[in-house]
Amino acid sequence: MKSLTKELWMNVPERRAIVSLHQEVADLVAESGVQEGLVLVNAMHITASVFINDNEPGLHRDYDRWLEELAPFDASPERYHHNRTGEDNADAHHKRQVMGREVVVGITDGKLHLGPWEHIFYYEFDGRRRKRVLVKIIGE
Amino acid sequence: MKSLTKELWMNVPERRAIVSLHQEVADLVAESGVQEGLVLVNAMHITASVFINDNEPGLHRDYDRWLEELAPFDASPERYHHNRTGEDNADAHHKRQVMGREVVVGITDGKLHLGPWEHIFYYEFDGRRRKRVLVKIIGE
Amino acid sequence: MKSLTKELWMNVPERRAIVSLHQEVADLVAESGVQEGLVLVNAMHITASVFINDNEPGLHRDYDRWLEELAPFDASPERYHHNRTGEDNADAHHKRQVMGREVVVGITDGKLHLGPWEHIFYYEFDGRRRKRVLVKIIGE
Repeated sequence: MKSLTKELWMNVPERRAIVSLHQEVADLVAESGVQEGLVLVNAMHITASVFINDNEPGLHRDYDRWLEELAPFDASPERYHHNRTGEDNADAHHKRQVMGREVVVGITDGKLHLGPWEHIFYYEFDGRRRKRVLVKIIGE
Repeated sequence: MKSLTKELWMNVPERRAIVSLHQEVADLVAESGVQEGLVLVNAMHITASVFINDNEPGLHRDYDRWLEELAPFDASPERYHHNRTGEDNADAHHKRQVMGREVVVGITDGKLHLGPWEHIFYYEFDGRRRKRVLVKIIGE
Repeated sequence: MKSLTKELWMNVPERRAIVSLHQEVADLVAESGVQEGLVLVNAMHITASVFINDNEPGLHRDYDRWLEELAPFDASPERYHHNRTGEDNADAHHKRQVMGREVVVGITDGKLHLGPWEHIFYYEFDGRRRKRVLVKIIGE
């Protein structure tokens, strides 16, 4: 069995933003030498997501508005118990559950096995600080 | 390490529908000869989901109404930026995030290791065309 | 390839509750002897979730209220078709989709490869009976 482990550092200057991880993950799969296997890509922080969807900026704006409707930012202690602890990011912990923590992608013939529009993204919900994403590849 | 890779073709005549993948995945696990391992089952398209839940038609109707409340179909360019690109399926990209892209299931003693009611489904949110699901099995 | 398979029994006396699985999963990874690999942790029942987020009781209360807004408990046959079958737990099948069925975590140097605040939890949405969680470890 072969494996490759890599932590990617993220540093998003805004509170929320979507950042492509696609090429970095594809490069790591090539570097691993794994021909048949799986790659796990996950946010190592609990106010961020890794997800696969369309590389289309309009859709990304739609996601942002939608998630704000489902779980609005509200720093006050009234809406979220979590924000009575001195935090202001309870909304981010909710948004991340909708978009998910991780993706697992097949590796076939040494490459990411993806459909035509599948694109791997990081979604930051509480940025302005350094965070990490784990890429873990196993296979043969 | 053993592996098996298979793309399943889907062709749902309606816009939205839930289709069982369960027997096909179970058969592929048997065909792979893997006794201990993991199987990844994921939609290769970004307006569809693979999920595990109850094989009960009433629940499937409930999901459909619920997802329509959370992210309504609206082909107009007003609600969704994505639909200003000529697409009408922005809602499908949202619904898929709630239901998820993929499932990962354990393989034990050569079989899917599932609870009594777990059933693997494909959820089409923008059908009337051919799409694929990836089944990737690794183990020993 | 090494593997370890373990079913954890849960028995939550309330309808809904969040229970830590973290130490048990960490101990199983140590017991497996796997140095590089993946661990899958999934609910084997379709009205429960396994998820990773913050070990902070205020946030857990926030999740509970939020999920009740997104998919309210309603035993009557009016709101949910599923509850016309004699069940009263349709809401639980919805809540579980938001929080997810499973997590996949990397194993590096024989340990769970997690960020500083990542904590593995079970979320029961229809308790008062025995249910299982699967821990499946593969690697080398």
